[in-house]
Amino acid sequence: MTDRVTVAPITRVEHGRARTDQDLVAIEAPLTVRLTQPSHGVDRSLGVIMRTPGDDRDLVLGLLHAEGVIRGMDDVASIDASDEAVHVVLAPAATPSAAAGRALEATTSCGLCGRLEMQSVARRRGPEPATPLTPAIVCAIPDALRAHQSVFAETGGLHAAALVDRDGRPWVVREDVGRHNAVDKVVGSALAAGRLPASDAILAVSGRLAFEIVQKAALAGVAVIVAVGAPSSLAVEGARSTDVTLIGFTRDGRFNVYTGARRVSVDSE
Amino acid sequence: MTDRVTVAPITRVEHGRARTDQDLVAIEAPLTVRLTQPSHGVDRSLGVIMRTPGDDRDLVLGLLHAEGVIRGMDDVASIDASDEAVHVVLAPAATPSAAAGRALEATTSCGLCGRLEMQSVARRRGPEPATPLTPAIVCAIPDALRAHQSVFAETGGLHAAALVDRDGRPWVVREDVGRHNAVDKVVGSALAAGRLPASDAILAVSGRLAFEIVQKAALAGVAVIVAVGAPSSLAVEGARSTDVTLIGFTRDGRFNVYTGARRVSVDSE
Repeated sequence: MTDRVTVAPITRVEHGRARTDQDLVAIEAPLTVRLTQPSHGVDRSLGVIMRTPGDDRDLVLGLLHAEGVIRGMDDVASIDASDEAVHVVLAPAATPSAAAGRALEATTSCGLCGRLEMQSVARRRGPEPATPLTPAIVCAIPDALRAHQSVFAETGGLHAAALVDRDGRPWVVREDVGRHNAVDKVVGSALAAGRLPASDAILAVSGRLAFEIVQKAALAGVAVIVAVGAPSSLAVEGARSTDVTLIGFTRDGRFNVYTGARRVSVDSE
Repeated sequence: MTDRVTVAPITRVEHGRARTDQDLVAIEAPLTVRLTQPSHGVDRSLGVIMRTPGDDRDLVLGLLHAEGVIRGMDDVASIDASDEAVHVVLAPAATPSAAAGRALEATTSCGLCGRLEMQSVARRRGPEPATPLTPAIVCAIPDALRAHQSVFAETGGLHAAALVDRDGRPWVVREDVGRHNAVDKVVGSALAAGRLPASDAILAVSGRLAFEIVQKAALAGVAVIVAVGAPSSLAVEGARSTDVTLIGFTRDGRFNVYTGARRVSVDSE
């Protein structure tokens, strides 16, 4: 184990039987990036990157290189990193490319702000169904997702997201090369259909689960997320703070409940 | 097949033998988003989203909802979509949340601009090794990546990227919950070590391959990308326009060469 993983308490459900256990989850945490060039009066926040801690200087150098802000280490006067922030001072001679003007001005979608707002988000939720989900319904969701996926199996290149009713029937399924896009598409569809808050729906996703997807689900009033893949640490934390039931690793009759186990009916061992 | 996939000509390599074939790839394409609110004098570009075409209105509605720009359809006066752009007109009564001010100002990293610049990118590359890669070296890369991954196998929640030399030895391996972050970390590491342009290196990635990763690789002078997963249509297009060799679905002694097959030595059938 390294500092890139943490331990999360879970309810492990196998063939309808539940037991308390632990699971390792990859750490996801926000990193603030500040860029200054004192010789040119530049002092800007580049926003927040959600990342796994470690090699943060390399991460920011690589990002600034990709964005055309720096071309080599000669452009960097200094780079300082703490656990939560990296500060890059550009050398006086550094001349970011024209396209980089955009990156320098951009303040990307701020995970941290969202995080602070999370506590108030759960209040948007409407009344929830009184009956808990059965393990059989949870276990059937990945197959239901695949049955509606027209392309994923053909190319292995598309993520899927769906809103599923409490009987396990998907009422909107969308695919995209971007997993966030697939979620935006199903939420947008529910919005256009007048079905938000979707408090009686389950959000199903074909892959892994990062913080931002939990945030989108909570904002849509969704109370249960079922993922085929693994959640990140911040996805678990976000689900806890918004009282969302987060289920991951749903496959072969098994799944892990990371938060909100009260919404699932299981026999405890 | 749907309009979310397209056919790409490939060189399919199985156990060292090559044949010309076709593969289905998921379509990735840029969508420009424009937001106006005539009553308030607002007329802004929200930048470009790289997405799989289809349900573009839902995608943008979902995104604007997640960002706090709209709360319901009452906030939307009209929404028009063409193949390449969506234009949302906000109702006079719409009042984007305070946090949304950020989203409204943001111009996210522009894939299109990058695309236009791609032709000039390949010129950054240094001299390449004269000898082509052997299939054995390509096939060994996923195992080499896994051998250096400390966490991925434990949690299933981390992507990996590496720079690998022409003998198949990784010289920097990084993991992250974000696949773009993992690539930024290895490129940043190479930059800090004075090893850019990395014209003699192979970029190896554990998952799928979207356009932006090809762009980052090309900017770093990398001439060969080996992915365990599938590339998108725009990843293939970007690799072609920057003369990058793109190899995907590398597993079990097999791989597909999507572009630049001249850099791989194979026996043709």
